[in-house]
Amino acid sequence: MASAAASASVTGAPCQQNAHDVGSNGAAVHSFKASNMVIEMSQTPKPKPEMTGLAFGTVFTDHMLTIEWSSGEGWQKPHIRPFGNLSLHPACSSLHYAVQLFEGMKAYRGQDNRVRLFRPMLNMNRMLKSAKRACLPSFNEAELLECIRKLVEVDQEWVPYSDNASLYIRPTYLGTEASLGVKRPSRALLYVILSPVAAYFSTGAKAVSLWADCKYIRAWKGGTGDCKMGGNYGASICAQYEALDYGCQQVLWLYGDDHQITEVGTMNLFLYWTNEDGEEELATPPLDGIILPGITRQSILELALKWDRFKVSERYLTMGDLQRALKENRVTEMFGSGTACVVCPVSRILYQGEALELPCAEDGSSLASRIMKELTDIQYGRTASDWNFEV
Amino acid sequence: MASAAASASVTGAPCQQNAHDVGSNGAAVHSFKASNMVIEMSQTPKPKPEMTGLAFGTVFTDHMLTIEWSSGEGWQKPHIRPFGNLSLHPACSSLHYAVQLFEGMKAYRGQDNRVRLFRPMLNMNRMLKSAKRACLPSFNEAELLECIRKLVEVDQEWVPYSDNASLYIRPTYLGTEASLGVKRPSRALLYVILSPVAAYFSTGAKAVSLWADCKYIRAWKGGTGDCKMGGNYGASICAQYEALDYGCQQVLWLYGDDHQITEVGTMNLFLYWTNEDGEEELATPPLDGIILPGITRQSILELALKWDRFKVSERYLTMGDLQRALKENRVTEMFGSGTACVVCPVSRILYQGEALELPCAEDGSSLASRIMKELTDIQYGRTASDWNFEV
Repeated sequence: MASAAASASVTGAPCQQNAHDVGSNGAAVHSFKASNMVIEMSQTPKPKPEMTGLAFGTVFTDHMLTIEWSSGEGWQKPHIRPFGNLSLHPACSSLHYAVQLFEGMKAYRGQDNRVRLFRPMLNMNRMLKSAKRACLPSFNEAELLECIRKLVEVDQEWVPYSDNASLYIRPTYLGTEASLGVKRPSRALLYVILSPVAAYFSTGAKAVSLWADCKYIRAWKGGTGDCKMGGNYGASICAQYEALDYGCQQVLWLYGDDHQITEVGTMNLFLYWTNEDGEEELATPPLDGIILPGITRQSILELALKWDRFKVSERYLTMGDLQRALKENRVTEMFGSGTACVVCPVSRILYQGEALELPCAEDGSSLASRIMKELTDIQYGRTASDWNFEV
Repeated sequence: MASAAASASVTGAPCQQNAHDVGSNGAAVHSFKASNMVIEMSQTPKPKPEMTGLAFGTVFTDHMLTIEWSSGEGWQKPHIRPFGNLSLHPACSSLHYAVQLFEGMKAYRGQDNRVRLFRPMLNMNRMLKSAKRACLPSFNEAELLECIRKLVEVDQEWVPYSDNASLYIRPTYLGTEASLGVKRPSRALLYVILSPVAAYFSTGAKAVSLWADCKYIRAWKGGTGDCKMGGNYGASICAQYEALDYGCQQVLWLYGDDHQITEVGTMNLFLYWTNEDGEEELATPPLDGIILPGITRQSILELALKWDRFKVSERYLTMGDLQRALKENRVTEMFGSGTACVVCPVSRILYQGEALELPCAEDGSSLASRIMKELTDIQYGRTASDWNFEV
């Protein structure tokens, strides 16, 4: 590795630290502007796919959004252009040093035929936070949201006419520095692609089994687990296949000597139980740096607080806590939360050679089912809410 | 994030676990073969750059090596082709989930005009280990080395005629799966690019100052710190700039509550001292999962063991150990090691608001200088060694 040489290029260009905010003419270049959008329409629109059985993230719409940045010229005009391959320098920092991050959100078509996004500014905020961690230049979140709104508008016929399918939106942000120095990139590319996705489970969320082991650790204090950076995900694939080898469907990510329960697969985690003090409680691990601040997670917490029917806590939960509660019949249910499935119940955990069975009501009476209904009612416009953003 | 959906695509294709070793016709497809190489020569060779003041990894040679893999067809023929951009699907897993890894090695031209690589099979072994961690398909290491040898041969005029510059070799390996599922990729691209690099320090290794803090942690048990995966590097850039803000040149990476000393910037770390038991010792942290198994590191250990002049240890070292040793004048020197600089002395460490000054002989009498001379004598063919591999 080009260790020392890399640092030489860093120390050789200390002024680059301000380059993100200043263009070559010295003027402030804080962000691209949606009003400068250039639109080039595809001349070869594709047929829309059958939604039934469509694998996640395999089909893309006719257009994509691209916005380029360089340290010399700042942000360029946003472009909506026909969907196509990227041409990248083989030395670029997104391919060698994972200077890359992404977001995941969805556009939903209501029965009123309106298309809505769900709390999209939270995705924009998180994307900007990830960008800072990755040393990628900042941008104006409202301008990016308006660019995405325009892209969805251009491809609006791709938003499924369905009350459970949706159009997945994938903003992506890469360092495109064409050199091998490990440093803040002098070029970057922000782009957004769209993919129609079927309902994850046609018959409602099916419960999953989890492999809980300390062999692989998803994230750690001082790392990037609270940002949506690519490195968090590639490192997890190995563990996912080992879970399958153990006959489980996903990984329950543990942390620390006390085996804290942190996340499930690529979802946040909730435990609904009677806690050690005999209180009915909905609990999820706190945002202490190793937990991804999920938008579904935040929405569930806010919903439950509004209901005011039980205690709602961001707190540490260990495997020991869970084992004791299971023995004492204090666990009501456990579920993951994420953009794809909204909520996903957990039926079993394989831990230290023992299969822990979790209660899992599948008749719609569970808390997970109630949350699923409330959130999808908002997303599909069946319930009015200021969490919606109309395209 | 498409959590559950991603796992669905995994569970939906369990048989893919064997796809790496079996082609579509069921035959074993273990690796590409160098003997199948297809060579397309560039029609527009570029002028060679001035080596003086050349920034690391910014200029590339006329050709590159590319080898494609797919789960259906296995490995394709290796190609040497004119250097150029890659065309990548915007959903590909190297750009979203950092399914990517690399290696770093060099070709050196001796005064005898022969071109040599330094222990290249160690890079091939490590690359295969990284590939396993990244869930990328395996390959035959000797075949890859032979492909790289051919590439260097084709671009041999780019190996600097110099006894301190060299040709940096960057093997890179990407998942090119064109879908957003977090899973083992069904397509991959292995490629190699070459970049002439100046001697890191024209006047020999200059000592660097380090910022030691627990705000950022490079790697952790259960993570990917012992593999050369992109995510390790992108996550470190932020810390590198914070070190600069503190007036230091690089980061000293700490680990654990006892503040173990692990690595320096992107280098391994050595402490040459009189240890707690009064023994003269060259020490470096053990390969316990958070340390990159550097080839320079291994070579220094092997050299020093052969010398048999002092104790050579792979052992834990904490900031407390170092502070005590400095107070008691037991530290002889500390240095980083890596492919770029070979060895790089450390002059100062900023830790908990205190500047720790380290002894740093700059007259060539240091252990770092002796190691530098022995290793570069081998690399440039001035000393015969079976560590050399002739192109």
